[in-house]
Amino acid sequence: MTRFFVTPDELNEKNPRLTGENGKHASVLRLRAGEEVILCDGRGQECRCSVLENRGGEYILETIERRKSPSEPEVLASIYMAYAKGDKLEHVIQKATELGAYEIVVFPSARCVSRPEEKSLGKKLERWQKIARSAAEQSGRGWIPQVIALESFAQALARATQTDLSILFYENEHANTLRHSLEKASFHTVSLLTGPEGGLEEREVQEAERAGLQICTLGSRILRCETAPLCALSAVMFASGEF
Amino acid sequence: MTRFFVTPDELNEKNPRLTGENGKHASVLRLRAGEEVILCDGRGQECRCSVLENRGGEYILETIERRKSPSEPEVLASIYMAYAKGDKLEHVIQKATELGAYEIVVFPSARCVSRPEEKSLGKKLERWQKIARSAAEQSGRGWIPQVIALESFAQALARATQTDLSILFYENEHANTLRHSLEKASFHTVSLLTGPEGGLEEREVQEAERAGLQICTLGSRILRCETAPLCALSAVMFASGEF
Repeated sequence: MTRFFVTPDELNEKNPRLTGENGKHASVLRLRAGEEVILCDGRGQECRCSVLENRGGEYILETIERRKSPSEPEVLASIYMAYAKGDKLEHVIQKATELGAYEIVVFPSARCVSRPEEKSLGKKLERWQKIARSAAEQSGRGWIPQVIALESFAQALARATQTDLSILFYENEHANTLRHSLEKASFHTVSLLTGPEGGLEEREVQEAERAGLQICTLGSRILRCETAPLCALSAVMFASGEF
Repeated sequence: MTRFFVTPDELNEKNPRLTGENGKHASVLRLRAGEEVILCDGRGQECRCSVLENRGGEYILETIERRKSPSEPEVLASIYMAYAKGDKLEHVIQKATELGAYEIVVFPSARCVSRPEEKSLGKKLERWQKIARSAAEQSGRGWIPQVIALESFAQALARATQTDLSILFYENEHANTLRHSLEKASFHTVSLLTGPEGGLEEREVQEAERAGLQICTLGSRILRCETAPLCALSAVMFASGEF
């Protein structure tokens, strides 16, 4: 069933409408009266609706059933990714959304080779948010992950440690496994931090450990900066019983 | 430590040499006498070597230690991916190699929108094999996954079921989890099958089930054809204790 994201207010109307981009998309799909679609507020609430009529490119719907989105994972996983080259960052935003990320946080670290300038950050965030929205639509998510940019590594550590469990993946950690960290205690929220192309500096890893993050390995193969967060997220989703 | 792939014969020499592309790469790195490198046959055997001398662009080495490559996973996971558009296939070959795949098998299925022509397949396989080799080098693998092209879906099923465990992931399967399939019995080899952009047809899934594959879900989000195999592989590596 086709999904459309609308605002929470639009979702709460008795007869929600598909307007603007949603209306155009519905026209392309040649939606007819009686067909069913899903409206979703991107915040976990959705409605099954049937099409009443197409009024000049605007579709009038009727709500059949309101529900909590059934496709959202139990565990809220925040992806913390150090700035990487644009295409890698966009790749991770798209794929992490598909895989069920709750939010995606980007931050600078010592060896980052690319970091957007202050003045272009607004436009970039807009672009990244669109990628997350589109991936959420395609994968049937009920939640659009927010993409958040932080100003420093210290800020990333401070924010990440507010979740029940926070983990930094480091290629020079060989003993402590992700499994071990996940099994230590139950958790509902988790932060997964990974470094940039050139890796994290040892002092950064020590800083993270002092801040309360667990330092884990992702196995004995060196993963690229765009592979590590997706590998970690897949494993956390598996470990928390999603599949 | 830098890794170079050589043939098994070259690896067995008392004084292995870096020639050709390897020699050029060593020159770029400005290797000096006394420095250590890893030679690897791409078949799981490797040698720690020290550089003796640079003789006109060829590097003469001395073997310090022979060993089984320590970066290879315990479980041999074969990725079976239906033909997808070129860039997606190449993406999966690169990432699956990083994540520890044993081999990567491509095959046609009913809804494949792109399948290489017979005459161009040889060149494509050569290119894909290069991608696997390069990803193996970068990620520190001791094994270069072979990329294998099969002619039919039936062939894929017949070959996949030769491993201890063979699993097909299907977006319309909601009950049987990967975890459940992995926990049923111990395994050393596993095949992970995923469909093309348009998904597998129901009759193909039934054919797979009759052939002895387990049909599993990867969670309630719809994964793209290039995301599913990497998500499954990450989970299998995690489940088998790699990280």
